[in-house]
Amino acid sequence: MKICYDGRGYSGWQKQKNAKSVEGVIEDALSIIFGESIDIFASGRTDAGVSALCQYAHFDCERKLDKSFVGHVNSLLPRDIRVLDINKVGDDFHARYNVKQKTYIYKFYISKVSLPIYDGTHTQVKSNIDDEVFRKNMTQLIGTHDFTSFCASDTQVVDKVRTIYHVELTSDGSAYTFKITGNGFLYNMVRIIVGTLIDISSGKINLSMSDIIDKKQRGFAGKTLSSTGLVLYDVKY
Amino acid sequence: MKICYDGRGYSGWQKQKNAKSVEGVIEDALSIIFGESIDIFASGRTDAGVSALCQYAHFDCERKLDKSFVGHVNSLLPRDIRVLDINKVGDDFHARYNVKQKTYIYKFYISKVSLPIYDGTHTQVKSNIDDEVFRKNMTQLIGTHDFTSFCASDTQVVDKVRTIYHVELTSDGSAYTFKITGNGFLYNMVRIIVGTLIDISSGKINLSMSDIIDKKQRGFAGKTLSSTGLVLYDVKY
Repeated sequence: MKICYDGRGYSGWQKQKNAKSVEGVIEDALSIIFGESIDIFASGRTDAGVSALCQYAHFDCERKLDKSFVGHVNSLLPRDIRVLDINKVGDDFHARYNVKQKTYIYKFYISKVSLPIYDGTHTQVKSNIDDEVFRKNMTQLIGTHDFTSFCASDTQVVDKVRTIYHVELTSDGSAYTFKITGNGFLYNMVRIIVGTLIDISSGKINLSMSDIIDKKQRGFAGKTLSSTGLVLYDVKY
Repeated sequence: MKICYDGRGYSGWQKQKNAKSVEGVIEDALSIIFGESIDIFASGRTDAGVSALCQYAHFDCERKLDKSFVGHVNSLLPRDIRVLDINKVGDDFHARYNVKQKTYIYKFYISKVSLPIYDGTHTQVKSNIDDEVFRKNMTQLIGTHDFTSFCASDTQVVDKVRTIYHVELTSDGSAYTFKITGNGFLYNMVRIIVGTLIDISSGKINLSMSDIIDKKQRGFAGKTLSSTGLVLYDVKY
């Protein structure tokens, strides 16, 4: 299933007790359709408040499905979650383990006063940034690195080596969109990366991204930005 | 005053009885500050649900104001309206009559299924469009024309000649932003223009924009799109 959701009303992708999750809500809808409990497996979790333009999840079922399934499941889902498409995959396919590339975007704007039109979709940054410094530093992310400096310290993941294929900063003259594609991302990695790039390009941090990567210590990077503005943009298999 | 607002919770800019307007809410805040009723004059009205990244309004007052006024008025305004800046202008300045240029943007996406991440900020378009046809036709708007075909028929405005200086269509690969700059816009003009460009570029209308301009009849243009996605982007004096 290809899925789009506005994550603002959810505690995140992952099912949790006593909290509304995207996974839980979709599984409830599927359980109604199939008359039995269905487990779905996504390309990865998204955190509380994080949205997805394009998330994928697979599930196993005996029944042969056609495209009318899309309308059926959407009729059982709240308006902020939509299944966009469905395709049959092989028995050996796994939405998480077969991921080749993921792309996230992070949207923010620079203003001392909050701009209501970006409320809930973009993070406000109060310091001015030097776009050229931001761009020069973001390209230092490209390649295969140990991203320990850009990972929440309370993670259980051991291997912190990831490969970044592409980074991009665009501006419409008012708001910025940072786009990053890699083979995978650590816990909070995108939010810490953007926070650090903003701190470097606003003069708050005097190290380069390469320096901070080399340190392999979370303390040298900038702060973890809010989930507002973070969107899982694409997943490739 | 330079003002930004999320217009989704308002009946429009203009004061109305029994409805919450942006103008009314700002005037209420100013009346508290000045201890008397204050009238403000904007660059122009925005319709119900339409937002502004950059609206301007002027008012007369005896008191000498400094930049601390911005924080003061914002403390009295709801979160979805922010005054961004304030500057003293001459006695002959009028925020409406001195406008030289206005820019609007209209945001939309193409998808048969609604995409929740664009809910409230972009209009959904269900037909595929040919970008090249859209761009070719939008450039026919540039120049000074009688825009009767692109004006809501229930308008009282007599002179329907306006000059368009610039048009632009950008896409981030997922959503589109149409940007248009002119010396002024008629009632519903931007929403009818985008609706018509979409109808032409999806093959629903077989006339060019130039043809439709020449007809000077509202009936030849496309439908008026929803206010969702329409933002007053900039005003120049």
